[in-house]
Amino acid sequence: MALEETLAAIVAPDPDAAQAAARRLGQLTKPRESLGYLEEVVRRYAAIRHDGSARVGAAEILVFVADHGVATHGVSAYPPEVTVQMLRNFAEGGAAICALTRHLGLRLRVFDVGVATDTSAAPMAGVSYRRIAAGTRDFLLDTAMDLEQAVRALAVGIAAAREAEASGVTLLGIGEMGIGNSTAAAALLCAITGMRAEEIAGRGTGLDEAGWHRKIKVIERALERHRSSSSDPLHLLAALGGFEIAAMAGVCLGGAAVHIPVVIDGFIATAAAAIADRIKPGLRDHLLFGHRSAEGGHQLVLRYLEARPLLDLDLRLGEGTGAALAISIIQAALAAYSGMATFASAGVAEKLG
Amino acid sequence: MALEETLAAIVAPDPDAAQAAARRLGQLTKPRESLGYLEEVVRRYAAIRHDGSARVGAAEILVFVADHGVATHGVSAYPPEVTVQMLRNFAEGGAAICALTRHLGLRLRVFDVGVATDTSAAPMAGVSYRRIAAGTRDFLLDTAMDLEQAVRALAVGIAAAREAEASGVTLLGIGEMGIGNSTAAAALLCAITGMRAEEIAGRGTGLDEAGWHRKIKVIERALERHRSSSSDPLHLLAALGGFEIAAMAGVCLGGAAVHIPVVIDGFIATAAAAIADRIKPGLRDHLLFGHRSAEGGHQLVLRYLEARPLLDLDLRLGEGTGAALAISIIQAALAAYSGMATFASAGVAEKLG
Repeated sequence: MALEETLAAIVAPDPDAAQAAARRLGQLTKPRESLGYLEEVVRRYAAIRHDGSARVGAAEILVFVADHGVATHGVSAYPPEVTVQMLRNFAEGGAAICALTRHLGLRLRVFDVGVATDTSAAPMAGVSYRRIAAGTRDFLLDTAMDLEQAVRALAVGIAAAREAEASGVTLLGIGEMGIGNSTAAAALLCAITGMRAEEIAGRGTGLDEAGWHRKIKVIERALERHRSSSSDPLHLLAALGGFEIAAMAGVCLGGAAVHIPVVIDGFIATAAAAIADRIKPGLRDHLLFGHRSAEGGHQLVLRYLEARPLLDLDLRLGEGTGAALAISIIQAALAAYSGMATFASAGVAEKLG
Repeated sequence: MALEETLAAIVAPDPDAAQAAARRLGQLTKPRESLGYLEEVVRRYAAIRHDGSARVGAAEILVFVADHGVATHGVSAYPPEVTVQMLRNFAEGGAAICALTRHLGLRLRVFDVGVATDTSAAPMAGVSYRRIAAGTRDFLLDTAMDLEQAVRALAVGIAAAREAEASGVTLLGIGEMGIGNSTAAAALLCAITGMRAEEIAGRGTGLDEAGWHRKIKVIERALERHRSSSSDPLHLLAALGGFEIAAMAGVCLGGAAVHIPVVIDGFIATAAAAIADRIKPGLRDHLLFGHRSAEGGHQLVLRYLEARPLLDLDLRLGEGTGAALAISIIQAALAAYSGMATFASAGVAEKLG
């Protein structure tokens, strides 16, 4: 489905469904609002799904993997070849998100959307090859991608959300892997929020002090070079983004179009959410934020997006790990909502006075 | 097992097991420390279990239910008969903790340790009757319980922890229900921490402003009356506690004796943890704190105990609901620890330099 069609299909969350959920929450055998933020999550899930029954359904984590031209500038603590090595680790089930989804009973799909080393001729089992190119370009020299590539990467995410819906999924999480992608995400977030590189950029997978300063300088130069792109979100995504960031933004948009809440992982996934919210203003209302990352200015960006994360565990792994953990909490909240007795059915006295 | 024997059996968590876990965490295919606080949780689980393998095992929630003499003073938004009504709701599977444990695959045991209405003649299925008395006494008139009753209630919790260990459980959570018990818990926490009633006491299940002021006055009078008990934790527990609070403290002590980490629920469970830590100094090192409750000064008390809660969702339901959710996160962290590949096994390059 084309981007334009997807954007046209997005309607606001349904206040009546939220209202129906609120009514039932008030009848369950518990003090009013005593499930705290989880009650808000249930109401929002109902509203996004346009379904006050807010039933637990299948959940899926979508992980997008790609390489970054900017990785040649020493902005990561790990060498660029780790991207393809980790793609294999995903395929073989050894990565953190593999262990978590196995344990939590979540589905997992892994997409190569632009790893530098092309393994599609001898494809890894369990990897969906939707390659846009063999990595982005160095955004200090050129735009990271062509506008057409950005739209294609968005379409990969939109298609993944539609495929999830067709297979019965009712809740999605997004995650990523790609050496250098915290630099691209930080640059995008600076351009979107107007905050400075040193406020936003973090240590990624473990940069030292010198590496962090180098990363900030790279981001500042990129912002300077691509200043003219900042007023249009698609141009901005093409100038500074990554294929996995664009694909995740596509999942945000595609999920909204098919009434599936999308749970955002950490720093890099939040950049995707922020750009999706620029492409379609108000899109953030269709998203849930999984956790507050320890990375850089994630906290500031969440505040900018008026988002309350479910978890705050100093995670900074990516891969959708924080989204997967948050989804387990959301599903449990939905299970409580569906599975609890009401005051009337259980014969429990309601509040005095 | 008697209290004295249990206390004698408690040894400090094993630093070698924590070290072994730390070594393996450093070899897993993820940036160092990128699982944040969850890595600390894995190390602590290993240390408490005296087992560096830190495997996922069966987890169980223990819920203790009892009534409180102080409930006659209008300190709760709900009438006292709700305690026995909720006991039946637990037995019938309609309470929040029932829905959560069903969904999360956790075991659940419910104990009547002193509900005012005695249902043991026609026992409810799934309820373990370990009644100390038909509720505590009004602690404005007398001690809430005899010292002997406090020791018996502790023993109920100790026995429950031992039974859990015998049945293969490796992780416990504690929870409670009892109209009036947030007043008893607040009084205990004031006596233990030296903080004032208005700093600690919350709205419980939903008191209005006038009710909250009434509750504070009741706590202040109780503290005044039982001032002489405050130097000895057992006397303090007897003076101000509840049977479910004592039983939960027993689980904390019994769990430590059999190397099972105990996950503390919210405000009332934290009072049990705090008294257990006074009975056996250093006991807090055997505990994990499930969540930061929205109730009263829970945040202050957690800081006093130097405890970092796993979740912060404004829950104030009790019943072990926050412990159950936290356990699902802890189990997922253990699954990642056990199930991930290492850099060597996956052929992934380690950090540069």
